[in-house]
Amino acid sequence: MSAPAKRGPFPRLAAFQTAHVDERLDALLVTHGPNVFYLTGFRGSAGMLLVQSDTASLIVDSRYVTLARELLDHSHDEAAIELVEVERSYEETVAELVRRHRPRRVGFEAAHTTVSQYEWWCRALDDTEIHLERTTNLVEMARLVKDAEEISTLREAGVRIAGVMRDIRSRLTPGQSEREIAADVDWAIRVAGFEGPAFDTIVATGPNTALPHARPGPRRLVSGDLVLLDFGGVLDGYCVDVTRVVSLGPPPEAVRRWHQAVREAHDAALAAVVPGVLPTHVDHAARTVLEHHGMGDAFGHGTGHGLGIEVHEAPRLGKPRAQSDAEETALEPGVVFTVEPGVYFAGEGGIRLEDDVVVTDTGYELLTDMSLDLIVV
Amino acid sequence: MSAPAKRGPFPRLAAFQTAHVDERLDALLVTHGPNVFYLTGFRGSAGMLLVQSDTASLIVDSRYVTLARELLDHSHDEAAIELVEVERSYEETVAELVRRHRPRRVGFEAAHTTVSQYEWWCRALDDTEIHLERTTNLVEMARLVKDAEEISTLREAGVRIAGVMRDIRSRLTPGQSEREIAADVDWAIRVAGFEGPAFDTIVATGPNTALPHARPGPRRLVSGDLVLLDFGGVLDGYCVDVTRVVSLGPPPEAVRRWHQAVREAHDAALAAVVPGVLPTHVDHAARTVLEHHGMGDAFGHGTGHGLGIEVHEAPRLGKPRAQSDAEETALEPGVVFTVEPGVYFAGEGGIRLEDDVVVTDTGYELLTDMSLDLIVV
Repeated sequence: MSAPAKRGPFPRLAAFQTAHVDERLDALLVTHGPNVFYLTGFRGSAGMLLVQSDTASLIVDSRYVTLARELLDHSHDEAAIELVEVERSYEETVAELVRRHRPRRVGFEAAHTTVSQYEWWCRALDDTEIHLERTTNLVEMARLVKDAEEISTLREAGVRIAGVMRDIRSRLTPGQSEREIAADVDWAIRVAGFEGPAFDTIVATGPNTALPHARPGPRRLVSGDLVLLDFGGVLDGYCVDVTRVVSLGPPPEAVRRWHQAVREAHDAALAAVVPGVLPTHVDHAARTVLEHHGMGDAFGHGTGHGLGIEVHEAPRLGKPRAQSDAEETALEPGVVFTVEPGVYFAGEGGIRLEDDVVVTDTGYELLTDMSLDLIVV
Repeated sequence: MSAPAKRGPFPRLAAFQTAHVDERLDALLVTHGPNVFYLTGFRGSAGMLLVQSDTASLIVDSRYVTLARELLDHSHDEAAIELVEVERSYEETVAELVRRHRPRRVGFEAAHTTVSQYEWWCRALDDTEIHLERTTNLVEMARLVKDAEEISTLREAGVRIAGVMRDIRSRLTPGQSEREIAADVDWAIRVAGFEGPAFDTIVATGPNTALPHARPGPRRLVSGDLVLLDFGGVLDGYCVDVTRVVSLGPPPEAVRRWHQAVREAHDAALAAVVPGVLPTHVDHAARTVLEHHGMGDAFGHGTGHGLGIEVHEAPRLGKPRAQSDAEETALEPGVVFTVEPGVYFAGEGGIRLEDDVVVTDTGYELLTDMSLDLIVV
């Protein structure tokens, strides 16, 4: 039996082994990269992890062998994780590894395993006693509440991304194209010390602000334009994500009304954040404000999404969904997410205001501290 | 019956319907974003397509409704594709749509459908006569041979990315960090007119060049360093990908030997490209050269990968794989891929040289025309 407070060089892996691998499963095959990173610190565009009760195998291809070996050597505990190199394909190497270790019940991540992979493994293990069992969100639920180290990284990332936003919005001038501004944003994200953008940077100008997920194009800024800037950065593997809107010159009355409504919705969402509240309730708080302003139909997306190793992860802050009501988990201290109400009017324009917060014992801490005013330059 | 040369606003969709939907399947559910883009021109971070024999349904969530509507309005053929907005979840909307249209045999993309999604759909359609059937690579195989428009885009992208490489390598100076250089690369990619980088830009310096997929870090360039630059851009949805190595000052004899061997391997791979040749043969040509130089073990990855809407797509140019031999398809005119042999010596350094080519009637056309010399600055 394992000691209850198992630490060692991979404390998250050890905690996960204690919590999950001894009960219902003899092993868990982790195919989702962010989950592999969370448990081991290994980050590549590929890589899988077979977790057993007292050991784990990190499976990588030749591109990542040196990186993985350095990571494991660095841990000074060779027993914790064995390194397995892919010979021909990940699927084949995993099947051989499972045949060698012979855990009886092998969990797999049903949301991160394709039908092709699953059926390949079923065939490859057909002549054994090994049984593949669906699992859902096991590592994701462990990732939901961030530890002190993760919050410290996200806090630092929040300060830096707010600095990038202040810098970029002060430099907007007529004549710049959306693509040029996006190039400046991505450069500033890197220079601020991030590994890179957390997602495709959104720079929408004029009527393009009505598209919640606009792709930066050739359109050039003209006086009077709205500019919606939505970008994020990855710091030590963790994502932050912010949105602000800038007006080039005094905005028309309609834009002021949109902005005021979204700002009130943003305030209402934040005010709803306390430990124990359901994510749908935070969404409801923002949505109700926009409905009172007669803009309920202009707010098509959810109020926010979890942040961490992925830029979209649990929790989802949206309307209740029939199938997933049972999965709704109340917010607790350490959960990190965005608050980003918005309104969009096709052909006219849109406003979105987005910040990142971490739930605390009494409410929330704002990770991205910037003015919510409609910036006029 | 459809006319044999169906064109209209979505010629790829029409050709695909003619080729695939009338035979074995009544419908195909396309869940892979690049495949949706190929068939319709719609590009979002989400979106699915239900293809039937004479109609198709594009399923998007509220973030992309305006974009999708503009695309479909622009086509001046409302019958070709209907727009369906997601209410609660993609899975639910797809299930309702399928129940409404009632195709009997619905193909799904087994390599792009998770076990969770598949089982959800099975349950949701359990009380119907609708049968879900696995398909593999149907749209991918249609994408393998690029049409004139695609090749024209890739040719333009190749010229531009070569320009970025020339520009960046001439500006390397001691003191720059890997991250700063990567920021400059990404900025230059955008300014060259690309929508953005095609993948996380690789800037590896000194011993980090031994890591085929190094992540740019804080390490600063010092005189005598090797610098490996591997980056790509997305132009109108199509990816290009190049690698060159620069030496800051005269390289040691070992580096010259590595570079000469990789260059010969690169030449040998290109010389092997003719219509009708197997991708494994092109890999073998490069590999044999490196083996003759005694560097076979230092070349752990494949010689190249297909390029197009995805930065890694068919064909794979690597060693033969037991399971996939039967799937090996001879190269034919219009197939686009990278040629990128490399050697890596842990703790010392590495060299990779990567170009993009399109197969022609008689051999190949180089899309990325740059010197293969070891650049010394």
